[in-house]
Amino acid sequence: MITLDKVYHAKYVLDTVIRQTDMIAAPKINPAAQIYLKTENLQITGSFKVRGAYYKISQLSNEEKEKGVIACSAGNHAQGVALAAARSGIRSIICLPDGAPISKVEATRSYGAEIRLVKGVYDDAYLEALRLRDEQGYTFIHPFDDEQVITGQGTIGLELLEQLPDIDAVIVPIGGGGLISGVAFTIKSLNPNIRVYGVQAAGAPSMFNSVHNHLIQKLESVSTIADGIAVKEPGEHTFQYVSDYVDEVVTVTDDEISAAILALMEQHKLVTEGAGAASVAAAMFGKVPIEGKKTVCLLSGGNIDVTILSRVINRGLLMTGRTYSMNIELIDKPGQLSDVSKIFAALGANVISIHHERANEGSDVNGCYLRITLETRNYDHIQRIKQELTKNGFKITSEM
Amino acid sequence: MITLDKVYHAKYVLDTVIRQTDMIAAPKINPAAQIYLKTENLQITGSFKVRGAYYKISQLSNEEKEKGVIACSAGNHAQGVALAAARSGIRSIICLPDGAPISKVEATRSYGAEIRLVKGVYDDAYLEALRLRDEQGYTFIHPFDDEQVITGQGTIGLELLEQLPDIDAVIVPIGGGGLISGVAFTIKSLNPNIRVYGVQAAGAPSMFNSVHNHLIQKLESVSTIADGIAVKEPGEHTFQYVSDYVDEVVTVTDDEISAAILALMEQHKLVTEGAGAASVAAAMFGKVPIEGKKTVCLLSGGNIDVTILSRVINRGLLMTGRTYSMNIELIDKPGQLSDVSKIFAALGANVISIHHERANEGSDVNGCYLRITLETRNYDHIQRIKQELTKNGFKITSEM
Repeated sequence: MITLDKVYHAKYVLDTVIRQTDMIAAPKINPAAQIYLKTENLQITGSFKVRGAYYKISQLSNEEKEKGVIACSAGNHAQGVALAAARSGIRSIICLPDGAPISKVEATRSYGAEIRLVKGVYDDAYLEALRLRDEQGYTFIHPFDDEQVITGQGTIGLELLEQLPDIDAVIVPIGGGGLISGVAFTIKSLNPNIRVYGVQAAGAPSMFNSVHNHLIQKLESVSTIADGIAVKEPGEHTFQYVSDYVDEVVTVTDDEISAAILALMEQHKLVTEGAGAASVAAAMFGKVPIEGKKTVCLLSGGNIDVTILSRVINRGLLMTGRTYSMNIELIDKPGQLSDVSKIFAALGANVISIHHERANEGSDVNGCYLRITLETRNYDHIQRIKQELTKNGFKITSEM
Repeated sequence: MITLDKVYHAKYVLDTVIRQTDMIAAPKINPAAQIYLKTENLQITGSFKVRGAYYKISQLSNEEKEKGVIACSAGNHAQGVALAAARSGIRSIICLPDGAPISKVEATRSYGAEIRLVKGVYDDAYLEALRLRDEQGYTFIHPFDDEQVITGQGTIGLELLEQLPDIDAVIVPIGGGGLISGVAFTIKSLNPNIRVYGVQAAGAPSMFNSVHNHLIQKLESVSTIADGIAVKEPGEHTFQYVSDYVDEVVTVTDDEISAAILALMEQHKLVTEGAGAASVAAAMFGKVPIEGKKTVCLLSGGNIDVTILSRVINRGLLMTGRTYSMNIELIDKPGQLSDVSKIFAALGANVISIHHERANEGSDVNGCYLRITLETRNYDHIQRIKQELTKNGFKITSEM
């Protein structure tokens, strides 16, 4: 059983190891509420996971410490365990599926873990970790369904109340549920009037389904940009804590998460991963009743691959009218490309790319088309560009 | 004259208005030193500029306050003045050239400023601001060459020493020189043993040239990704303070700045603008002698356009072997595209784009070529892909 005593003890144990991450006012995220950001994306290892892992390890017996710990993860949990073990001066072994992104493997190794690449998918790596545990006597560190891990995450609840004592609500991302279990238990124990909301990705609603059906349910598959919370089945402990202490669980779409990632970058200069931005997505898109309330969005982590970040930005630019792609049909005679270019220049649209091709199926024999991508200012700007093209006799055959 | 007294006074005045931004350990930026980041990119308005502007305004007479203030800037200074004036309950007028990015105009307006768009370039907007000052009696707030503005920026020096008393060195970006003048004066006054280094963009080395020639020098033109420090001429005050208190001024290239921006995003989840990352670029690329030293890199701001950020990421991916573009010559017979695709799939390279074209000038009549962009893991991975293509008879005619 978690108790407040133990959470305070975890805070004491963690004090010199982790960062007390900053709380930042974010008035523009949802002007109808008073939003604050708890920046665990700025935690060492780039996520909150190190809290639970370090506290768990600190509570092992000397004999257990001597043998070392094992975990299975390609993400934040792996890095948290690796760093926590290194700081505690003990061995850590991390089992990963052999297709795991090299960047994550290297990051985990750099924190001091021994890496075991296991042929297959996550479940294969998990079974291998359990096998090694039994064979070698390592202690297995579960990513969420462990009371000491949950206790460690609960320290964020204490920090929240210290940093902003009069909060009305907290929004927390849910994958397996370890983070919200600790935070909700701690906050409700100290002040039951504070609302605690959980957020899942719409493509991985395992806790959402389970809570609504009052029964642990397992998903066949998950699909979301927020890989940190793409968990198929809640834990037994976490399901119980969420059922007991969380006011409501909601979901957000990948497009909403992408918009939140972009808003956090543009307005607050913070990089978050999909899971980390889910709480902000819920606040931005009115998924939880926070009007007029002092609300903390917990940014759980920032370990997003820059390749994905680049895609999120590009999609965000498209969605906010700051890039625009279209096909234009031309008569194949000299001067047409020049005329089109002049229109873009006059209206201050920056050309990103132009493909000019002849005689594709759709157009007549003399026809050709231009595939154009522009840097634009906003939707009004796009509208003016389209009007000017049409006025000059060009036909826009498709847009994106 | 700036005095330490006045810097302490500024700290008192600013206390309830600005954020005391966090200091974050950054061991990987340069493992040979102990690097810390002072995160003024997380300051309100996204840059340090609000400190100087607010302190300047606080020292105006009641009569001056009643008339209001005027400034000329399309960037961080405009937002700093606008917010500082709004918080002080006075009018602010910001003159901008009419080609200024809409996003910056809107951001400045949103902080409460009245915007005057002036036909022409920056210099025209500047002249209009001076004209309005003379006509209407507004107080002009200079972006850097003003002793009270410099005093306000000096408060960062006090914070640095409070947050990390035993620092050996500080690296500070230089545009006009207001920030480093305040920081260097404050730090050297309290502890002359701490080294203060200034960094400019290689494409805008106005203070660098001036200091090395012991004479204020004006550049004909400037060109850098770090628009926040693209200043043609140092101020008279700032030139003097930098000459008296700064140990060395160095420059960094745009590629080095881009690499720093990417490292700050990936390793520290922080978004910085070019100017803001210049100090980290100097530390990463060995521009200053900091081996074994506890060194603070001042991240001056984070207001970078996401369009530019997206370009920086893409360039960074290219430079670190995580994307790869090439042209391949094919014989124009069925099955070739399929063979190439199989090689990519087998080696785990993700196709971003493929253009397949026939009969361009360089190849023979039956020839055609593929223009391909791949998501790759690193340079080794690229090497293996190239070898496999060559082994299967494909000819790579150009790469990027």
